[in-house]
Amino acid sequence: MARNVTVAGCQMGPVSRNEGRQVVVKRLMDMMRAAHAKGARLCVFPETALTTFFPRWYMPDWNEVDTFFETEMPGPATRPLFDLAAELGVGFYLGYAEKIQENGVWHRYNTAILVDRQAKIVGKYRKVHLPGHSELDPKRPWQHLEKRYFEVGNLGFPTWRLHDPELGNAVMGMCICNDRRWPETWRVMGLRGVELVMLGYNTPSWNALGGGEDPKLRLFHNQLSLQAGCYQNGCYAVGVARAGLEDGVEMMAGSCIVAPSGEVMVETRTSGDEVIAATLDLDVCQFNKSTIFNFAAHRRIEHYGIITSQTAATPPE
Amino acid sequence: MARNVTVAGCQMGPVSRNEGRQVVVKRLMDMMRAAHAKGARLCVFPETALTTFFPRWYMPDWNEVDTFFETEMPGPATRPLFDLAAELGVGFYLGYAEKIQENGVWHRYNTAILVDRQAKIVGKYRKVHLPGHSELDPKRPWQHLEKRYFEVGNLGFPTWRLHDPELGNAVMGMCICNDRRWPETWRVMGLRGVELVMLGYNTPSWNALGGGEDPKLRLFHNQLSLQAGCYQNGCYAVGVARAGLEDGVEMMAGSCIVAPSGEVMVETRTSGDEVIAATLDLDVCQFNKSTIFNFAAHRRIEHYGIITSQTAATPPE
Repeated sequence: MARNVTVAGCQMGPVSRNEGRQVVVKRLMDMMRAAHAKGARLCVFPETALTTFFPRWYMPDWNEVDTFFETEMPGPATRPLFDLAAELGVGFYLGYAEKIQENGVWHRYNTAILVDRQAKIVGKYRKVHLPGHSELDPKRPWQHLEKRYFEVGNLGFPTWRLHDPELGNAVMGMCICNDRRWPETWRVMGLRGVELVMLGYNTPSWNALGGGEDPKLRLFHNQLSLQAGCYQNGCYAVGVARAGLEDGVEMMAGSCIVAPSGEVMVETRTSGDEVIAATLDLDVCQFNKSTIFNFAAHRRIEHYGIITSQTAATPPE
Repeated sequence: MARNVTVAGCQMGPVSRNEGRQVVVKRLMDMMRAAHAKGARLCVFPETALTTFFPRWYMPDWNEVDTFFETEMPGPATRPLFDLAAELGVGFYLGYAEKIQENGVWHRYNTAILVDRQAKIVGKYRKVHLPGHSELDPKRPWQHLEKRYFEVGNLGFPTWRLHDPELGNAVMGMCICNDRRWPETWRVMGLRGVELVMLGYNTPSWNALGGGEDPKLRLFHNQLSLQAGCYQNGCYAVGVARAGLEDGVEMMAGSCIVAPSGEVMVETRTSGDEVIAATLDLDVCQFNKSTIFNFAAHRRIEHYGIITSQTAATPPE
């Protein structure tokens, strides 16, 4: 029997710094309804979907920082989204800033959850590849303080098989934004059999550090990363942006769904709230996984050691 | 002082099964002269450049197989290419089938050498990711018996810095054909500071196993692999095909030079012998290497373990 799942990418337009959670959650719920109307049984929302992308500001006051974090999930503001998911029978991926007490210590992570079609949280991922910097950098036109506000994720890159025929019993994985640029992200999930990678992102249309990276090149890098990851691991990906002019910074759109062939199946056309959807035949993954990327037949870990034994580059003299 | 190197990709049209080494070497020499006339100081030739791509045939007689292998490099047929390189002051990458005695045992490898501008062999690479199969597969329209005719390379993925200002003192790496599809190939060289990856390939325009892979999609996969490898490691690549209808099998062209931005700088327009060239500013590599792909700042090897501890994929139940 064919294993199909219809997934939706729910791209968001900008969320202003003073936009309340309730307003944002209503936007997410509207998109979930639109996705369901397209036949979707799984919605992918962006990174830190509940607030503006706050790492663009340096905030010395941690009480102010904490206004962007969630201490419970679902909480009062997000409960209606979970209720709607259960009512419609739609699972979802949601990115948010997570503040949590573990072993008596408070931690902050850039987190995504996987919620099943009964609105139960069944998976959690915490962003591993935090880009940017940890101290105020006055030379930048805007800050990218993820290394200040978040700890490196401590959950690795798990995969989950949800035993739900409406989701094609898919093997799912999650990552967040900058993770998508790292082949290690994809390969770890590929080694865990991933068939569908979900990811949200907040990416400025211009590189704050220059390098000749304009919006067209930045969009290319986003797509290139997803396409290579899908092709090289025989999986689908749903990449979802928060886009548009957000509090003075232009954020990249280009949300898309990519096939195991590396081809883009569908992509957004706007920089606002927009839902795209596609029906994925999960059995297609097996072609790559069993031929050119048959890991068991072709990988040669005896020559890969440096990838895990050494963090930094060491050029020859 | 800027570090520049002008490199050439010397694509070859088909080499028929009975074309002699001398004829082939003359073609290589003609292209080396053309490359030199374009200002190139380094030429990249294809995989197994001296013969047809013989793994497409099942040959039970190993004496016949051995007619496609070199037991010395340079040998009588290839010496003129080395002499010309020294005369012009042009280094090169050359792929060939290598038969060599090591510790009293004969071995066969799919090999590439790096030759400096004084015509001295300064680097050797043996293909790690051998695609295809090891026994006759009657279901295929043509064979891909690399796993039969070659052993897995035993030299890893080294990099070399040639202290030659005419070559920009570049940090160079080599891989061969199918290696380019594996992000591990690029990352191992990236961790060794690679600035310029050279690779030759022999890739049929159609996938012998189907999968809906037509010539357009196959070309896309080639370019995607090079573009992702360059972007994610902040390096240039020169990818060079043997192309055209070779002994009844259509081989992909699409030789190209790719920048650290992932953009294609120049590509071939034909499926025959054709030289492309570009001048590479090696300092451009530092932008990616010191910002978004600053390995020391961003890689998280504590979450990558499975990449080197496990060969095959293990999906969840």
